[in-house]
Amino acid sequence: MSTRAHLVIACDDRPGIVATVTGFLHRLTANITALDEHATASDGGRFFMRIEVETALMTVEEAELKEAFQREVADQFNMAWRWRAVRHRRKMAILASRADATPLELLWRWRRGELPADLVAVVSNHPDLREAVEDFGVPFHCIPNHRDIRQEAETRMLEILEGTDLLVLARYMQILSGEFLAHRPNQVINIHHSFLPAFAGADPYRQAFETGVKRIGATAHYVTPELDAGPIIEQDVIAVSHRHGVDDLRQLGRDIERRVLAKSVQWHLEDRILVDGNKTVVFV
Amino acid sequence: MSTRAHLVIACDDRPGIVATVTGFLHRLTANITALDEHATASDGGRFFMRIEVETALMTVEEAELKEAFQREVADQFNMAWRWRAVRHRRKMAILASRADATPLELLWRWRRGELPADLVAVVSNHPDLREAVEDFGVPFHCIPNHRDIRQEAETRMLEILEGTDLLVLARYMQILSGEFLAHRPNQVINIHHSFLPAFAGADPYRQAFETGVKRIGATAHYVTPELDAGPIIEQDVIAVSHRHGVDDLRQLGRDIERRVLAKSVQWHLEDRILVDGNKTVVFV
Amino acid sequence: MSTRAHLVIACDDRPGIVATVTGFLHRLTANITALDEHATASDGGRFFMRIEVETALMTVEEAELKEAFQREVADQFNMAWRWRAVRHRRKMAILASRADATPLELLWRWRRGELPADLVAVVSNHPDLREAVEDFGVPFHCIPNHRDIRQEAETRMLEILEGTDLLVLARYMQILSGEFLAHRPNQVINIHHSFLPAFAGADPYRQAFETGVKRIGATAHYVTPELDAGPIIEQDVIAVSHRHGVDDLRQLGRDIERRVLAKSVQWHLEDRILVDGNKTVVFV
Amino acid sequence: MSTRAHLVIACDDRPGIVATVTGFLHRLTANITALDEHATASDGGRFFMRIEVETALMTVEEAELKEAFQREVADQFNMAWRWRAVRHRRKMAILASRADATPLELLWRWRRGELPADLVAVVSNHPDLREAVEDFGVPFHCIPNHRDIRQEAETRMLEILEGTDLLVLARYMQILSGEFLAHRPNQVINIHHSFLPAFAGADPYRQAFETGVKRIGATAHYVTPELDAGPIIEQDVIAVSHRHGVDDLRQLGRDIERRVLAKSVQWHLEDRILVDGNKTVVFV
Repeated sequence: MSTRAHLVIACDDRPGIVATVTGFLHRLTANITALDEHATASDGGRFFMRIEVETALMTVEEAELKEAFQREVADQFNMAWRWRAVRHRRKMAILASRADATPLELLWRWRRGELPADLVAVVSNHPDLREAVEDFGVPFHCIPNHRDIRQEAETRMLEILEGTDLLVLARYMQILSGEFLAHRPNQVINIHHSFLPAFAGADPYRQAFETGVKRIGATAHYVTPELDAGPIIEQDVIAVSHRHGVDDLRQLGRDIERRVLAKSVQWHLEDRILVDGNKTVVFV
Repeated sequence: MSTRAHLVIACDDRPGIVATVTGFLHRLTANITALDEHATASDGGRFFMRIEVETALMTVEEAELKEAFQREVADQFNMAWRWRAVRHRRKMAILASRADATPLELLWRWRRGELPADLVAVVSNHPDLREAVEDFGVPFHCIPNHRDIRQEAETRMLEILEGTDLLVLARYMQILSGEFLAHRPNQVINIHHSFLPAFAGADPYRQAFETGVKRIGATAHYVTPELDAGPIIEQDVIAVSHRHGVDDLRQLGRDIERRVLAKSVQWHLEDRILVDGNKTVVFV
Repeated sequence: MSTRAHLVIACDDRPGIVATVTGFLHRLTANITALDEHATASDGGRFFMRIEVETALMTVEEAELKEAFQREVADQFNMAWRWRAVRHRRKMAILASRADATPLELLWRWRRGELPADLVAVVSNHPDLREAVEDFGVPFHCIPNHRDIRQEAETRMLEILEGTDLLVLARYMQILSGEFLAHRPNQVINIHHSFLPAFAGADPYRQAFETGVKRIGATAHYVTPELDAGPIIEQDVIAVSHRHGVDDLRQLGRDIERRVLAKSVQWHLEDRILVDGNKTVVFV
Repeated sequence: MSTRAHLVIACDDRPGIVATVTGFLHRLTANITALDEHATASDGGRFFMRIEVETALMTVEEAELKEAFQREVADQFNMAWRWRAVRHRRKMAILASRADATPLELLWRWRRGELPADLVAVVSNHPDLREAVEDFGVPFHCIPNHRDIRQEAETRMLEILEGTDLLVLARYMQILSGEFLAHRPNQVINIHHSFLPAFAGADPYRQAFETGVKRIGATAHYVTPELDAGPIIEQDVIAVSHRHGVDDLRQLGRDIERRVLAKSVQWHLEDRILVDGNKTVVFV
């Protein structure tokens, strides 16, 4: 069982943060195996840090360490921070619709161990994916949803999703209400099938086709109440040409959607993403 | 001296176009060395074709060929078409401002023979690039321009640019009037420093920074009276991260601007770009 | 049912080929919807052409057309050529080993209709993938194979594969004998997990790691008796860094392997690949 | 004038390095603005670190700091390390031949301030670039060189290059002797016009053409006595097809050569590259 842990920190930038945090860890014989940090300005900005720690030799319990960290380090820098032992896996659920490409990509990577989480459910507003999902040994729930029954659908989903701490929208075509999202800040990842901010909203491949762009893209982002406008995690594009019709764009785009979403979910599960206002800091 | 020629055709799609055109060329012993075609729909769309021809063995004069082509081929298909002997080089001018990256890229490639045109002038609204341009043996004209003197500036430019058939805006920061553009349909290429349609208008790198995108891009397009909305010729992007400030984006973006613009100008000069409404067909 | 067909041609280059072929098709009211051609030299090289045809209005039977084409066109240019009605789907089989990434990618895309072929079998020298394959409704055959039993294994495979006209090696780790390959020129596609010609042979990700390359790649190629040296169909790469160990390269590389192999198989099935000596012409 | 400095460290990995180094800097009020580290193994590997420091408030002289760092930190971890104040710019020289693309790219970026070094000379074995180089105000030296006069040529070059600490081979076509290189470990950067280790040696674009690869590349590496085999700094590739002849590959490849070389030189000048045996650690 893994004895590694991730420590993630955000605070206003001030001299001495790195020395204080790493000195603290060293005293407790928590050995740093990776460290990334970022300051948003040379002076007076925000500071973000991610540390990977090997705790096999650590002489204190995790609870004790956390308490000491708050008292000796976090308080003086007014830090927001999170310590997560790698063996404490997150509980993840997937929301899908009819399209199978992105949900299957996640299921397949999860089965390979590339997505270190407990996958507790796939929820869809259509029954189409039931067999494919259950083949992976993952519970499948069909909860119809559209504008007129959204509240009821979300109530049922909240029951099923209770206790999950990551929700992945894998081409889920319904809008989630502000109330639903309010409980999950930066815990819902969506894939949008365009290079945002271009082509937000409906049918982005058709928009791309009609605009005549020479690259199409996909964007993974945290979901906020404003449609397709939450903090961007990752984007990628692929070249297209006049030869490609809308259906070709859909086929070509699927590959980017799968890749961009899977990477973003993996990064989230590895504690690599910190949110900085409406932007992200991604330590890779 | 080259005996090659390019034949470019656009018309409504109908059976028999390829056979008719290639049969005509074959009878006149104009040998086809490359052929690209594109139909926008399987039935009832538009048809575009580009043919490279070797005319060394051709038994008729160019004028005679053109007349015969109109009579025997173009009329029956109601074609828009252009025949250009490669030895008839286009006359190109560059409009620049203070920034040297894209104008110098074009000058270098032109000197190296990668841009097959006569480069007759570089015009700028600032004097900064005079020495750099004149080092290439190219005439440099400084014509101040801003909103209040636009008409006068454009009048002077039109004099200098008379006889040119390609105008390249290499980060020229002034808007050209509809009257100026009216005489040059699909003959003015601009580079916009974003992945259009995202971040049209002013200071796109700052817009990109504030949006937190993970790729920045550049777009070359034909200029139409509507700002940053003309037919897109080429686009490309590069990965960026939270580590990059606005100035970093400007530096990284310059590389893409240079590459995308130079490629687009080369394609235009090689008759590879056909305009299809507000989109382009690019045969590469 | 599709009434489209593909005509693929290779011959020595001479004036008049395009006109002769397209004139022939036009006379038979076979309507050209796409045409690509390539000449390897401006004079005296080889000529390759691919034409997509709509035959709904064609007034002759396919057999008659083929006979007439041979007599009226192919003979005079000494052409190698193939006419394939799109409704005549190829029979494809997959050879796999233990790794599931590339076989599953092909199965998914096949089920989605992106690979227009009849998938008649997956053969593996290990039983691991049986369930995953059979979930797709595709027959799975486990035929153990290693150096000492190669002849026997290949005999059994040849029985199963009889009648197939495309064999895809999706990380099949065994070498196929020259006798086995002799019957299938340019009908066996392999994915090699490196950017060939770099790192041919065993364990290319380890070779890449030890060399310290900053990009890893994958290469799809037709299999010839010389290991990893057949005509290259497609390649791609991905950026890596000092942070990536051999296992990271394997994970990152899988994405490229899947994409490069799937694209190559699709192109083969769409008659887009012509072999030119030890190189390929790929019309996309 | 900049008050920033870079501290670069390599040593065997052991617990406490980060805490010790950052604690030392904090005590001297040298404020860390960026930190990157890398360990080659989770246990028992090598450790590499790069720190950017703001020294405006530092209370000791640089000499004193260095002495204290050696005594209090470096000795206990047996570190190889380098402290460089950013205002102490390196002295760089370029070796070129006839081709102008990569030397001009470096000159142009250097003039823009993207390459923070004193550019003291361009040396070429041909006179062709004299005017272009001198336009940038940089001394140009023509020192003929070939196999038979190598020793004499290198003697003259060593005189001119005395005091330089970075030598960039921008398509310099001559081999440098082991003696010449011996004095400059990891201080000579070469651009090779292929994706190494593929196509080492002469005329890689022709090799690539004849192999039929679908991507061509360029590789920047530190020069060692073994030809084209030194530690790789950066690589990139571009898609090519059957349509591209050897000359097309040369033109397309130039863009990658320019970009890959310029990036690598910039990284070297910013102290971002550490050498780890025959590989590099690049902190970007």
